[in-house]
Amino acid sequence: MAKMTPRTLSGFMELLPAPQQQMERIMEILRTTYSRYGFTPLDTPLIEASEVLLAKGGGETEKQIYRFTKGDADLSLRFDLTVPLAKYVALHYNDLSFPFRRYQIGKVYRGERAQRGRFREFYQADIDIIGDGKLDITNEAEIPAIICQTFTALGLKRFQIRVNNRKILNGFYAMQALSEKSGDIMRTVDKLDKIGAEKVKALLCGEEIGLTEAQADEILKFIAITGSNAEVLTALQGYAGHNEVFDEGLAELNTVVKYLAAFGVPEENFAVDLTIARGLDYYTGTVYETTLLDHPEIGSVCSGGRYDNLAEYYTDRQLPGVGISIGLTRLFYVLGEQGMLNSDLPTAPADVLILPMTEDLTAAIALATKLRGEGIRTQLYTEQKKFKAKMNYADKLSIPYVIFLGEDEISAGVVACKDMVSGEQTKLSFDETLERIRTGLAEKNSGHVILEK
Amino acid sequence: MAKMTPRTLSGFMELLPAPQQQMERIMEILRTTYSRYGFTPLDTPLIEASEVLLAKGGGETEKQIYRFTKGDADLSLRFDLTVPLAKYVALHYNDLSFPFRRYQIGKVYRGERAQRGRFREFYQADIDIIGDGKLDITNEAEIPAIICQTFTALGLKRFQIRVNNRKILNGFYAMQALSEKSGDIMRTVDKLDKIGAEKVKALLCGEEIGLTEAQADEILKFIAITGSNAEVLTALQGYAGHNEVFDEGLAELNTVVKYLAAFGVPEENFAVDLTIARGLDYYTGTVYETTLLDHPEIGSVCSGGRYDNLAEYYTDRQLPGVGISIGLTRLFYVLGEQGMLNSDLPTAPADVLILPMTEDLTAAIALATKLRGEGIRTQLYTEQKKFKAKMNYADKLSIPYVIFLGEDEISAGVVACKDMVSGEQTKLSFDETLERIRTGLAEKNSGHVILEK
Repeated sequence: MAKMTPRTLSGFMELLPAPQQQMERIMEILRTTYSRYGFTPLDTPLIEASEVLLAKGGGETEKQIYRFTKGDADLSLRFDLTVPLAKYVALHYNDLSFPFRRYQIGKVYRGERAQRGRFREFYQADIDIIGDGKLDITNEAEIPAIICQTFTALGLKRFQIRVNNRKILNGFYAMQALSEKSGDIMRTVDKLDKIGAEKVKALLCGEEIGLTEAQADEILKFIAITGSNAEVLTALQGYAGHNEVFDEGLAELNTVVKYLAAFGVPEENFAVDLTIARGLDYYTGTVYETTLLDHPEIGSVCSGGRYDNLAEYYTDRQLPGVGISIGLTRLFYVLGEQGMLNSDLPTAPADVLILPMTEDLTAAIALATKLRGEGIRTQLYTEQKKFKAKMNYADKLSIPYVIFLGEDEISAGVVACKDMVSGEQTKLSFDETLERIRTGLAEKNSGHVILEK
Repeated sequence: MAKMTPRTLSGFMELLPAPQQQMERIMEILRTTYSRYGFTPLDTPLIEASEVLLAKGGGETEKQIYRFTKGDADLSLRFDLTVPLAKYVALHYNDLSFPFRRYQIGKVYRGERAQRGRFREFYQADIDIIGDGKLDITNEAEIPAIICQTFTALGLKRFQIRVNNRKILNGFYAMQALSEKSGDIMRTVDKLDKIGAEKVKALLCGEEIGLTEAQADEILKFIAITGSNAEVLTALQGYAGHNEVFDEGLAELNTVVKYLAAFGVPEENFAVDLTIARGLDYYTGTVYETTLLDHPEIGSVCSGGRYDNLAEYYTDRQLPGVGISIGLTRLFYVLGEQGMLNSDLPTAPADVLILPMTEDLTAAIALATKLRGEGIRTQLYTEQKKFKAKMNYADKLSIPYVIFLGEDEISAGVVACKDMVSGEQTKLSFDETLERIRTGLAEKNSGHVILEK
């Protein structure tokens, strides 16, 4: 028979078993952490009616969408988890209680140009808090705690949550009589990290935006405000009293900073950063970016912000919210590239491999059943292979313990168990062996999934 | 602004938060159980190149496939998890160790006619064991243990794993000189449960298949063999010695039955059933179906079998395997319809809702942080609402505990905590409150996710 050469589409991540185990650990940590903060899991379809998904229309995203017909239906694959959330909340409004806090970890699709490290199918891990009409500022103050706890649980220490407030920016530009140009200005200022102050100034004074040099200087002076959180807030206080929006934003930022300690966010993991604006136009209050201090080239690994109107394309109800998103597939890829995934954590499919040494397998099977009943992930190896091949199998899969069960052990009521790392072999009772395996596994599993160098 | 009416496509399950929590519990149980048996999780793309996914071609499935183009690429959504597994194993053969045991819980797509309880997007939860060239019969014997443990962990007792062996059927038909017609015969016999023996006989003797009455009677006599496992095996022994394939199948079936007890499968959850053939042509050895004894109308909730050649369309290597699949979305739907989902298990997004009674939120936030640090899923409620509205919120979401924190409690160093079910309110230290919540949650979470009536 003619064979079709198997392949996986480019831009689609397909992991081997060991890295997949690492990915599963990360997802489990995200699920657990998000749950701790009172978010409920959601799962929405990957396919939506195009007219629903693209109600907002236009934009760069639309070109990248996987859109197709099936019968009469015009369908699209979701390109983020926010639009499906907006649809969900508008559709199920009467069945939900607000504030509605949900997390969703799911695949989204964007037909981007194939490129190393760029994915067409990728996981996003989102949380959002949606209010009905109003949403208290405390929710915005809570977000850094969730980011901090998430990355700490993953094993990171050297990260920084950078926070700003769009009202401060909008108010500032209004004070400078530059409101109309504020969008262009913010998009330009957003490039500061990448291209530097001089080039930003050139762009601001260029034909397209057309600021005077004095205006550009004022902006650069403003966004150059740095220092400790207290210092930045003090400097901002100097601008207060001239614009209502600015003052509101500053009050919000003060609240966010005020509660950091109570939320358990260390000062060193947090920075007020006036250069953060987030490209998306719909952010209206606090905005967040998260960078790995030793890997600024990765860019933000967790971003989001406050928005005033989640579902305006589906409902007249005002549904303000705040949310963040982790680009999980890209993060996983980058962590792997940087060698930051902890390879010491077990990735084997089983904790124990049982090698029966008798023709009748009853005793070996009963032992496997007993171990499984105790929560030990156990595989029976019953293929007809040489002893060496069986040990190689355990070795290649990094299965930590191998148990041999022959007539001698069965009649003596003991279990021969080899630690595949230390090489130590014991002949102990079932209970003692179980204890040894449990202690060993607890130790092997005690590390963090991400390792900083 | 004109609004787009939000909707979810028909045939796509989108759950409200409470049932979603139940679905998450089920998935977690499946992941845990599958892991216990040494299966490693996999996650493959939802989109594959059409020529790869449809290498086998033809069949009823092809019409149902979501197939589309993006740029030059001819793409399809996966319609099961078996073809992607075949591709995966053929593609990554050199990086895998065999037997390769994987589980996968993922969505698949079939554009079936929309119908109540029929889904176009649905979860399958599969396990497969793939051998390289050979695969020992013990793997087939282990499958009933996995099915049994899975359904037991979900809370079911009244289920039956029905097992047969295709070699027994093939051997039997060879003895009757009916090998050429065995496919048609098995497809007809498969309808026995639905249409009864008389109609099956009529079909067998009809123009299309054309058996003599004597032949049909011989077949009906054979598949009518029932009784305890031992009785059926004894009856089958009466046919032994005439056909090699039959004898091989009987030996395999004897092995499967022999090890049931060691694998922890109660006799009442298992039955040799000669009417089981499984429609799919590629099963070659043991085949499995699982029925809920009180709900035979649901049909099989977990099916599968042994096959000789997983990836013949991609590789010359012989890759025999055995696997089972649970149609999770349909199962969940049916359980819901039957009222079998345990509504006593917590479905709230949080275990504790904190209602701060002070303007400064520092103490309330610190308390939330402390509870979260102890693993308690905690939500702070900080919206400006009347007290009654706040309590209603906890009530509607079925949050089991509400904590009030006012100046009195803060200065006394206690926590006021109300059990929302019993109504009991306590003022205790943090540690005592934590203990009370933990004890209560353990009790609330102690039930099974599925309830038999």
